[in-house]
Amino acid sequence: MSTALKTFFAPQLIIDDCGAAIKFYEEAFGVKELQRWSNDDGSVHVAELSFDGALFHIHEPTQKKQDSPEKLNGVTTIIGVFVDDVHAVAEKAVAAGATILNPVQDYDYNYRQGTLIDPFGHQWLIEKKL
Amino acid sequence: MSTALKTFFAPQLIIDDCGAAIKFYEEAFGVKELQRWSNDDGSVHVAELSFDGALFHIHEPTQKKQDSPEKLNGVTTIIGVFVDDVHAVAEKAVAAGATILNPVQDYDYNYRQGTLIDPFGHQWLIEKKL
Repeated sequence: MSTALKTFFAPQLIIDDCGAAIKFYEEAFGVKELQRWSNDDGSVHVAELSFDGALFHIHEPTQKKQDSPEKLNGVTTIIGVFVDDVHAVAEKAVAAGATILNPVQDYDYNYRQGTLIDPFGHQWLIEKKL
Repeated sequence: MSTALKTFFAPQLIIDDCGAAIKFYEEAFGVKELQRWSNDDGSVHVAELSFDGALFHIHEPTQKKQDSPEKLNGVTTIIGVFVDDVHAVAEKAVAAGATILNPVQDYDYNYRQGTLIDPFGHQWLIEKKL
């Protein structure tokens, strides 16, 4: 008997310097590196990371119409991540160097949310339903 | 006794016409609309959607440095989504009007992956581990 895989999102963030990003995400979010694929010059092509068990990827730009937030001067997707303790996750990330776009607060649509910008220009929406 | 929430990603896609996007994602991915917040003119400000049980949001552009793929002429994040039947999900989306960037294939790093572009410029990486 096979068990159907549960559907889940695993965003793939386009980042110019994936090696620096791994270090930052380790410190900011306690991310664990699961796998990396490197270029001949030692730079990181792709890395597979775990954010408290939630899989995601970071990828250097390689295809048309995929580029870093610095290059495009904005983001097309905000990285929403549901966590148990929104305040603790946000505070740790800010201590590591993330900046606050929207401070953590409780909204009348029954979410606790805060938006942070990481050093690579990606925006993280740390959130939970109340 | 409280149970800690499992951490998970819920990407928030920036889209100019969220009403049109809801219709497309319903047809392409069988998405269910869970909630919507509308503007006074009836246009959709934010919608909360379920992709086979996986939560995500679409949001009209409202803050600086957040914009649609059409406006930024590219994406900063590829929407990775792990599913049970990659071929079936991709074929249904293409039938609904998504275009193929990378056709579904099995890679030597033990992933089955295909990348699609939706009518709003977002890129979807339909994938599973083999």
